[in-house]
Amino acid sequence: MSDSGPAVSFQTRPELYRHWRLDLEGDVAWLVMDVDEQGGLRPGYDLKLNSYDLGVDIELYDAVQRLRFEHPEVRAVVVTSGNDKVFCAGANIRMLASSSHPWKVNFCKFTNETRCGIEDATENSGQTYLAALNGTASGGGYEIALACDRILLIDDRSAAVSLPEVPLLGVLPGTGGLTRVVDKRKVRRDRADVFATKAEGLKGRTAVDWGLADEAIPRSRFDETVRERARQAAAESSRTGEGGVTLPMLEPEITDGRIAYRHVVAELGEDLVTITILGPQAEVPKTIDADFWPLAMTRELDDLILWLRTNEPELGTWVIKTRGDADAVLAYEESMIGDKDWLVNEVRHYYKRTLKRLDVTSRSLVALIEPGSCFAGALLEPALACDRQYMLEGAEIVVTDANFGAFPMANGLTRLASRFHGHDDPLREARERRVEADEAEELGLVTLALDDIDWEDEVRIALEERASLSPDALTGMEANHRFAGPETMESKIFGRLSAWQNWIFNRPGAAGPDGALSRYGTGKRASFDRKRV
Amino acid sequence: MSDSGPAVSFQTRPELYRHWRLDLEGDVAWLVMDVDEQGGLRPGYDLKLNSYDLGVDIELYDAVQRLRFEHPEVRAVVVTSGNDKVFCAGANIRMLASSSHPWKVNFCKFTNETRCGIEDATENSGQTYLAALNGTASGGGYEIALACDRILLIDDRSAAVSLPEVPLLGVLPGTGGLTRVVDKRKVRRDRADVFATKAEGLKGRTAVDWGLADEAIPRSRFDETVRERARQAAAESSRTGEGGVTLPMLEPEITDGRIAYRHVVAELGEDLVTITILGPQAEVPKTIDADFWPLAMTRELDDLILWLRTNEPELGTWVIKTRGDADAVLAYEESMIGDKDWLVNEVRHYYKRTLKRLDVTSRSLVALIEPGSCFAGALLEPALACDRQYMLEGAEIVVTDANFGAFPMANGLTRLASRFHGHDDPLREARERRVEADEAEELGLVTLALDDIDWEDEVRIALEERASLSPDALTGMEANHRFAGPETMESKIFGRLSAWQNWIFNRPGAAGPDGALSRYGTGKRASFDRKRV
Repeated sequence: MSDSGPAVSFQTRPELYRHWRLDLEGDVAWLVMDVDEQGGLRPGYDLKLNSYDLGVDIELYDAVQRLRFEHPEVRAVVVTSGNDKVFCAGANIRMLASSSHPWKVNFCKFTNETRCGIEDATENSGQTYLAALNGTASGGGYEIALACDRILLIDDRSAAVSLPEVPLLGVLPGTGGLTRVVDKRKVRRDRADVFATKAEGLKGRTAVDWGLADEAIPRSRFDETVRERARQAAAESSRTGEGGVTLPMLEPEITDGRIAYRHVVAELGEDLVTITILGPQAEVPKTIDADFWPLAMTRELDDLILWLRTNEPELGTWVIKTRGDADAVLAYEESMIGDKDWLVNEVRHYYKRTLKRLDVTSRSLVALIEPGSCFAGALLEPALACDRQYMLEGAEIVVTDANFGAFPMANGLTRLASRFHGHDDPLREARERRVEADEAEELGLVTLALDDIDWEDEVRIALEERASLSPDALTGMEANHRFAGPETMESKIFGRLSAWQNWIFNRPGAAGPDGALSRYGTGKRASFDRKRV
Repeated sequence: MSDSGPAVSFQTRPELYRHWRLDLEGDVAWLVMDVDEQGGLRPGYDLKLNSYDLGVDIELYDAVQRLRFEHPEVRAVVVTSGNDKVFCAGANIRMLASSSHPWKVNFCKFTNETRCGIEDATENSGQTYLAALNGTASGGGYEIALACDRILLIDDRSAAVSLPEVPLLGVLPGTGGLTRVVDKRKVRRDRADVFATKAEGLKGRTAVDWGLADEAIPRSRFDETVRERARQAAAESSRTGEGGVTLPMLEPEITDGRIAYRHVVAELGEDLVTITILGPQAEVPKTIDADFWPLAMTRELDDLILWLRTNEPELGTWVIKTRGDADAVLAYEESMIGDKDWLVNEVRHYYKRTLKRLDVTSRSLVALIEPGSCFAGALLEPALACDRQYMLEGAEIVVTDANFGAFPMANGLTRLASRFHGHDDPLREARERRVEADEAEELGLVTLALDDIDWEDEVRIALEERASLSPDALTGMEANHRFAGPETMESKIFGRLSAWQNWIFNRPGAAGPDGALSRYGTGKRASFDRKRV
């Protein structure tokens, strides 16, 4: 798979799925993976044995999202396979072997975000995911299971769970497997070592004894037991609500140099893109539908982030602006940070997840805060997610309660707490403030306040300088600076684990012409440099 | 610098230093960097402007160690430069540009360990390090300062602190700079971003305002102020004790295939090395000198780890054994885990640091526990540091108090707590136990208990399998499995930051023939792939 094909769209809906079925049965949803071998996103590989590529994962992401917004009645989700021999064989190896380095890394990032999104649905929406492994789950297939709350494994002397990447492919499991095995499933590290080097994996009782699965269930009782576990999980869920919101497919206007949604507009330059988020135009409505500004804006921003990451890798700087009325944004505050209503809760967590995407986006993020902007409360967060904030005299930003807990980063801290890590005073002083440029600089809320005379030159120079630096070094630097303070399983996956994976993806022993990824299935052994690094 | 020169020795003593002076003035030590330009460890580069290579850092490591053991009277250490224009220009760029990937990574690991060792001396031995920056400290030079407790910067309109790696070299600061700036110095992330992209760095008051230095001191008052701050730090130290132990240089017998110290022996095979730690032969002496078994054994193990990492990169598996009397080891328990006596405290922390080296060693570690071994208490830790433990019937291991806090890993947990992360019961059950093979397996203290009949084959197959796997994938896998649970600044440096650095070191934009490292100083711009990864 190369990067040079047609642009990838992340928009789909269940009627268009080629690889998944979404079956609804009261409070239980069945998400059935049945990959169309011929349905690869790019030519050059067959998606055999329920293996996946980005196209398959885009459908999974869509399904997980729709379950949260369209189905308040769904309280448990069973992920299973439509292929009765194999649950899922993981990411397609020929696809990986033929992909460029940036494509592989971007693919892993998106799949990682979807796996974390599954955990987010269980934790914050009472939609408990159960993996019903009716056949072998290997590599990325087992990593989908690891993202679920419970793993039910068929015990038929054939079905196994495995992470064969290290022994067979010379790479790491790319979507959190190593981290989740020790940090989530709490498998002993020496057993994790044995497991991740054992290509054939483990079956039945042993998998359960080691903590790799929760139950091993004989074939004769498998379907029935899965149903029962799903019913139990649904019964225990605290999810309430009715009247789901149907999410129409987004149809941005894409012209040369411009991607325009209703509330988000991107202007593409030579080495940067300017993203403008437009504040709400209308009064806060009584009921929430798909046009509800926080939801519609979030969906558009989310889609744009994914689109730019995948289709515009050379636009190394994202300039983030807002335009609109700060008070109009603040009027939506309650409807963005509350969680009493199920739908408000969904909107908040969706916006939170979208902001987290910014945090792990491998682009330099620069906020330009100008008069006429509306960086207020929830809409101040995109600025705080940036590597730098430039503010022009005459502009105003508003810090509200929304900036103190509603939208935590992957490390568990708010963006303000991460920014002021180790400094309590500025954090306290910033609370509930409406501040102009000079004061914002003084409070440490922006990097630099500038007057009219300097603004244009200073900003231009900063952006030009950025564009001249090593893209790789910037990626590494930003990934380290953005997460001061504590770490969580999630931040470890995007930090430690992904960095090691990226390194390996770039090593000859994995992705080189004689490396394990390229040689897989050819009968020829990979050639490794035996020197340990 | 290539890996193919003569073997590197880590043994030295102050009389042999070419790059540092260690001056003692009562309770203050002066560690003066004055690098001999012609004293590079390998040919091909001049160590201009107090830049350093592995040889310079070996002396620094030696000095830091000796200060702890030989100088109980030293309570503050001033690190400064003998060159009055430049404190230190960081790692030598021509050395880096001409080094192989494994050499660069190993070099960074060792320098990182020494920086963490400086912090360990301040935290655990009351030896407060002060960086007296009498000239510019750039890159690795500033990272030495960052490892110190206080940074005193001369304010003369010329001296700056800087991390120019990203803008000038297309790599990351290699020894913890990015992490320490935000996590230790608690510099705001947007300022950290500006700082790490600003080649010329920051001077005087601005450096202090941003948190990058503690004081900016005019030249006229610099020496005097540094002296005063050192005296203050010494006065505030809780360090007590007398009668330092002089550490003789180790002289292992190195023959083809064997490195023999008095208490540690390594047998080099084709793709693995067997390390045997010998238990104490004599009764516990009344006073501690350099022959004291815990100290002598630790020094030898430490030296061996460094030697093997640097000189034997193709020996991908380290098999760890012990031989001796468990009770004789246990007789030393008090003298290894206590901290009432300053020297016992030093021995404990040194052994702790040596075990931490094992944790971050990029080799597969396998413990073989056989009859006649003495994996007891403190000496059980090397086994727990391993990726796997195989135990033969008839052998015994002993869990003692020493395994419950005396030797924490970089993540702040004991090796047992990391092993049983998330499981309280096995941790409780393991407490103070003397166990045989079957019970050890049952308690989860070893991976596999084997009888005489299976032992040889099982172990051989496991080691052969290991040697057949991708060395890179093993390195990445082990780095992720070994640190379950929480993270600290130290574990972030060895995990997240180092992994990103390794990735960048392997990218064409940095280390390729047209990359920034190679082109530095040639007047030609580096060629970057503009695609963000």
